[in-house]
Amino acid sequence: MRQRNKPWAREKLANYPQYIIQEPKEQKGKWQVCFGNNRPLHIEIGTGKGRFITGMAKQNPEINYIGIELAESVIVSALDHIIEEELPNVKLMNIDAAELREVFEKGEVDRIYLNFSDPWPKKRHAKRRLTYQTFLSLYEDILPPQGEIHFKTDNQGLFEYSLMSFSQYGMILKYVSLDLHQSDYEGNIMTEYEEKFSNKGSRIFRCEVQYR
Amino acid sequence: MRQRNKPWAREKLANYPQYIIQEPKEQKGKWQVCFGNNRPLHIEIGTGKGRFITGMAKQNPEINYIGIELAESVIVSALDHIIEEELPNVKLMNIDAAELREVFEKGEVDRIYLNFSDPWPKKRHAKRRLTYQTFLSLYEDILPPQGEIHFKTDNQGLFEYSLMSFSQYGMILKYVSLDLHQSDYEGNIMTEYEEKFSNKGSRIFRCEVQYR
Ligand SMILES: C[S@@+](CC[C@H](N)C(=O)[O-])C[C@H]1O[C@@H](n2cnc3c(N)ncnc32)[C@H](O)[C@@H]1O
Ligand SMILES: C[S@@+](CC[C@H](N)C(=O)[O-])C[C@H]1O[C@@H](n2cnc3c(N)ncnc32)[C@H](O)[C@@H]1O
Repeated sequence: MRQRNKPWAREKLANYPQYIIQEPKEQKGKWQVCFGNNRPLHIEIGTGKGRFITGMAKQNPEINYIGIELAESVIVSALDHIIEEELPNVKLMNIDAAELREVFEKGEVDRIYLNFSDPWPKKRHAKRRLTYQTFLSLYEDILPPQGEIHFKTDNQGLFEYSLMSFSQYGMILKYVSLDLHQSDYEGNIMTEYEEKFSNKGSRIFRCEVQYR
Repeated sequence: MRQRNKPWAREKLANYPQYIIQEPKEQKGKWQVCFGNNRPLHIEIGTGKGRFITGMAKQNPEINYIGIELAESVIVSALDHIIEEELPNVKLMNIDAAELREVFEKGEVDRIYLNFSDPWPKKRHAKRRLTYQTFLSLYEDILPPQGEIHFKTDNQGLFEYSLMSFSQYGMILKYVSLDLHQSDYEGNIMTEYEEKFSNKGSRIFRCEVQYR
C-alpha cells in the first residue's frame, strides 16, 4: 500500500484512544480488561484500510477484534471506518507484526487473519513474507495450542509458498479453496484488495491452517 | 475412462509377458530380480493409456517404472505404446490399487505418481478417491520412510481435497504449483488427460508430498 505523507495522521490516532490502542505493550496480558469482557480475541495483521476487520466486528458481535497495521498513513482510513460504525468490539494497533510477542501473552489471541499480505516475490525477500517460518513461530507464541491462521490472497506465488511454509512448519491444512468466490464458503467479508483484484478477474485463494 | 468391451484385450495382455506382469503377487519382494537390476522403482497408479509412464521411462533410463491400471480395455493402449518404444525399464500391471500391499514389500517402491485420478466429486464417494486416507496408508506401507507422492490433476475440487487429506494424514507439502503449465517446472511429461484438459483451457495443479 503506497504510503503518502500525512503529518496529521499521528495526531488523529492520538485523539481516539477508545479505538486506537495507545500503549500496546502495557496491555500485554490484560486484553480482556481492555475490552471489558472475556470474549475470544481475533486479530488481523496488515489490516490496511480496515474494511475486513470492521465487517467482521459487525458480523460477529460476540468476538473482539484488533486490526494491526504498520503504516500510520493507512491505519487512519481504518479509524475513519470504525468512528463511523461506532463498534464496541474492534480496536486498531499501529505496530509492526514483528513486535507481537511484546504485546500479547501466550494464548491471548484466539485466531489470526492474514489478508492479501505483501507478496515479496523475490526469493531473497522471503523472510519478509508474513507466512515465513519466523512469523509462524511468532504467531504460535501468542495463540493457544491448535490455534488457527486464516489466510487469503490473490497472489498465486505467495499462496503456493505459504501452503509449503505452513506444511513444512508442521501445521495442518484444515480447509483450502482455490477459487473462493466460486466456492460455497459463506459469510465472506471482502477486503479492499480483494474487491480490487477480483474485479480485475483474479481468483482469490483461501486457507485455514492449524498448529499441532 | 469409458471402458469399451474388448474381448481380445485379455488375450493380448497374456501375449506380452515381458511388458505385462502376469502374476503380480508372485513378484512381491523380488522386483529387482524381475527388472534384472537394483535401480529405483517408481509406479504410477491409474496409468490410463500410458503416455506418462512411457515418457518418463524414456526420459529417465536409470529408473524402473510400473504403470498400474485397473481397466483391461485401457491398459492395452498403454501396451501398444510400450511395444512400439521397446523400452527395457517400464512394465504394466493390471490390478486394482487396493491390492498394492499384496504386490509390493515395504520400501520396494521409491515413488508413487498419481495423475488425473478419478475425482469422485460426491462426498459419499470420498473413500474411492486415490488420495483418501486409506489409500495414503496403503502407499505408506510400500514406500520407504520419507517416500513421496507426486500428484497432478485439472480437477480443482480433487486437488483441494487432496491437499487437505495429505496434510491431515501428517504428510509434508514439499512443492506445489497452482498452474503447472505457467510455472518454471522443467521436464514435465504430459498425460493424455493433461493434454485434453489443458487444450480446453483448464489449469493444471501439481504437488509433491512426503511422508514424515
Ligand atoms: C497489500 S496490503 C493489504 C491490506 C488489506 N489486508 C487488504 O486486503 O485490503 C498489506 C498491508 O499490510 C501492512 N503490513 C505489511 N507488513 C506489516 C507488518 N510487518 N506489520 C503490520 N502491518 C504490515 C502494509 O502496511 C499494508 O497496509
Ligand atoms: C481419469 S483416468 C486418467 C488416466 C491417465 N493417468 C491420464 O492422466 O491420462 C483414471 C484412470 O485410473 C484408473 N483407475 C481408477 N481407479 C483405479 C484403481 N483403484 N486401481 C488402478 N487403476 C485405477 C482408471 O481405470 C482410469 O484409467
